[in-house]
Amino acid sequence: MDPISKLTQMFGRFPGIGPRQAKRFVYFLLAENTAYTRELIDYIVRLKKEVSHCPTCFRLSLTPVSQQCALCSDQSRDSSVLMVVAKDIDLENISRSGEFNGRYFILGGLLQILEKNPEQKIRIRELTNLINNMSQVGLKEIIIALNANPEGDNTADYVRNTLTPICQKTRSESSNIIKISVLGRGMSTGTELEYSDSDTIKNALKNRQ
Amino acid sequence: MDPISKLTQMFGRFPGIGPRQAKRFVYFLLAENTAYTRELIDYIVRLKKEVSHCPTCFRLSLTPVSQQCALCSDQSRDSSVLMVVAKDIDLENISRSGEFNGRYFILGGLLQILEKNPEQKIRIRELTNLINNMSQVGLKEIIIALNANPEGDNTADYVRNTLTPICQKTRSESSNIIKISVLGRGMSTGTELEYSDSDTIKNALKNRQ
Amino acid sequence: MDPISKLTQMFGRFPGIGPRQAKRFVYFLLAENTAYTRELIDYIVRLKKEVSHCPTCFRLSLTPVSQQCALCSDQSRDSSVLMVVAKDIDLENISRSGEFNGRYFILGGLLQILEKNPEQKIRIRELTNLINNMSQVGLKEIIIALNANPEGDNTADYVRNTLTPICQKTRSESSNIIKISVLGRGMSTGTELEYSDSDTIKNALKNRQ
Amino acid sequence: MDPISKLTQMFGRFPGIGPRQAKRFVYFLLAENTAYTRELIDYIVRLKKEVSHCPTCFRLSLTPVSQQCALCSDQSRDSSVLMVVAKDIDLENISRSGEFNGRYFILGGLLQILEKNPEQKIRIRELTNLINNMSQVGLKEIIIALNANPEGDNTADYVRNTLTPICQKTRSESSNIIKISVLGRGMSTGTELEYSDSDTIKNALKNRQ
Repeated sequence: MDPISKLTQMFGRFPGIGPRQAKRFVYFLLAENTAYTRELIDYIVRLKKEVSHCPTCFRLSLTPVSQQCALCSDQSRDSSVLMVVAKDIDLENISRSGEFNGRYFILGGLLQILEKNPEQKIRIRELTNLINNMSQVGLKEIIIALNANPEGDNTADYVRNTLTPICQKTRSESSNIIKISVLGRGMSTGTELEYSDSDTIKNALKNRQ
Repeated sequence: MDPISKLTQMFGRFPGIGPRQAKRFVYFLLAENTAYTRELIDYIVRLKKEVSHCPTCFRLSLTPVSQQCALCSDQSRDSSVLMVVAKDIDLENISRSGEFNGRYFILGGLLQILEKNPEQKIRIRELTNLINNMSQVGLKEIIIALNANPEGDNTADYVRNTLTPICQKTRSESSNIIKISVLGRGMSTGTELEYSDSDTIKNALKNRQ
Repeated sequence: MDPISKLTQMFGRFPGIGPRQAKRFVYFLLAENTAYTRELIDYIVRLKKEVSHCPTCFRLSLTPVSQQCALCSDQSRDSSVLMVVAKDIDLENISRSGEFNGRYFILGGLLQILEKNPEQKIRIRELTNLINNMSQVGLKEIIIALNANPEGDNTADYVRNTLTPICQKTRSESSNIIKISVLGRGMSTGTELEYSDSDTIKNALKNRQ
Repeated sequence: MDPISKLTQMFGRFPGIGPRQAKRFVYFLLAENTAYTRELIDYIVRLKKEVSHCPTCFRLSLTPVSQQCALCSDQSRDSSVLMVVAKDIDLENISRSGEFNGRYFILGGLLQILEKNPEQKIRIRELTNLINNMSQVGLKEIIIALNANPEGDNTADYVRNTLTPICQKTRSESSNIIKISVLGRGMSTGTELEYSDSDTIKNALKNRQ
């Protein structure tokens, strides 16, 4: 295929990009000088070479392959709490808020309702391994931090159901009790009561303080 | 002023209506037959005549003037909880959710930041009177149910500060302790972690369960 | 029906208004004082009483019933050109542009594709009457000025087909030839070639100058 | 700079892409396998190598450097009409409409109002050269086909003013008269009279047929 059509097709797979904008990207690259595209290519190569999944939390990081990322190797972070998120971007946003100082784990996605092979879609085995390890060194709580939508809730149920027996086993083995929690529900910033759905009202009432 | 221009102006004051749509309303009325406008007028007259503020909760209702509205006179509702909302439409939406069976009170608005005469903008005196009365007959909790935005928070602070001494007084007088609560904060339905603000993340973490 | 529900229903028929905004209108009227609603009612009454269709062009105007409107009785306007538009608002917008100094006629609507009773939907009989009259006093051109969309095109075809025999008859009777024209097609202000449809490109090319 | 930050920055320069979506692009590339990024890189390299400006019309095409593109070398196209457009994407859209069978020339952009160095922003010298050549072999009309907005109009004025003396010179030299035209103005598909600006109404009236 010719490079204009092929790149239009490839950019069309980028998140949120339709065929029209994909074509504009191609013309943008054609209009830029070769130094620009060479730099773009260099950094794409470096991205794939230098960025890899942390073997512990599975987030993408610049530390050399099979070494722990900066967050996982940071001894000042609290190892008694593990937050399970779906994607790197979720972790980044939570990290930016400065409201959490524990450990993270990245599932790698969310489960559609009635997903047939959940263990192939999210890193549930890696998560249970990590919890087995962390339970030896003082893990007290797992926070399942997923989107407040059907996929998020479905994934949270699956993760909770899978982890509960493990957490109960650790309970019998030691005095260490691992609690499983989910993010609190209620009014998020900007919510107006006039437009709130029943579920948000129910949660806001239940969790009133 | 001629009726076309004048009505365009008056419809332009309706919530969310600009001059262009206001003009369309005028042409719409002109296109409808006289029976329609007569019916419209009849019902506007009836609206102003038959609808009045309930003397207890101040919501607009069809019960005769100075009689309590259907909600306030409903003996099956729980008089130990009072929910304070800003507007009739908020009450309607909460009521539709079916999640609350206590009493309501309508403040009549929200306070802008640095509002100079709060007692003229919202029904704070009427609220304190009602609480004095309800404290005699078993009121246990006041839920301040306002929008999760700066005006809502500002109003909630003002209401809480005004009510706290009254609630503490009732405490010393009887064994009846009136708690003041606000709606729970956290993830509302549809919230995605990637796009959440720090405040929502903080509350979702604090209120995790 | 109670006035809140009934007015919500009636405002819900206003152009572009859904049930939610209709309800807000009702609460808006309830919040306004009685002087406001009385004024609103007075002007709606005056609107229906004082505004009537001009017997010549059928636009809505404030001149007493059965008298010609200000535009039709204005002797300085050019009686050799008649512009046929669909709605009062179209006339107003064209009039505001200051680009036309002839006569107007308001059809009262547009015809859906395959409309069964076109003569009941638009004032085609009144239009033919007017043209018969104007042909006696120097009418030279009829401009069909309708929206550039399927309904507009469909209505233009119907009007042209109906008027053509009349215009041809006047031709044989006198030296007066009545031309039928439609608005020019091409690039409208703001059109970008990148996003133009084939029809607009075709017309812009055909009508290039 | 690390590749994640650098690529977020570089994608942020792509047309219509903000920092948030740029970051999503980076994570998208990280999630894709290396075969995908290798293919992407290969095609970017090929794009810059294989695609070049046609030496005649200056559109980007896959024909070897300094060879005419498929459109310019197509003998079945009409060499008596030259359409001047701003960008490759404009040409593509016009070409897709199938309404034009003449020659194209791509200016390479539009001129801002009061642009100081117009000849550095658009290919006006290349255009005058081409016209000099084409005038020897039967060029009869130049269609300036630019957006119907201030930049488009400004550029059209500049192009017309520059070309007029050349077209007049060719006139005296031969019997060949080169006409300069612009795209027709009026109602474009979908235009509603209620919302049309005065300019569109003026043009639609002037160009009525």
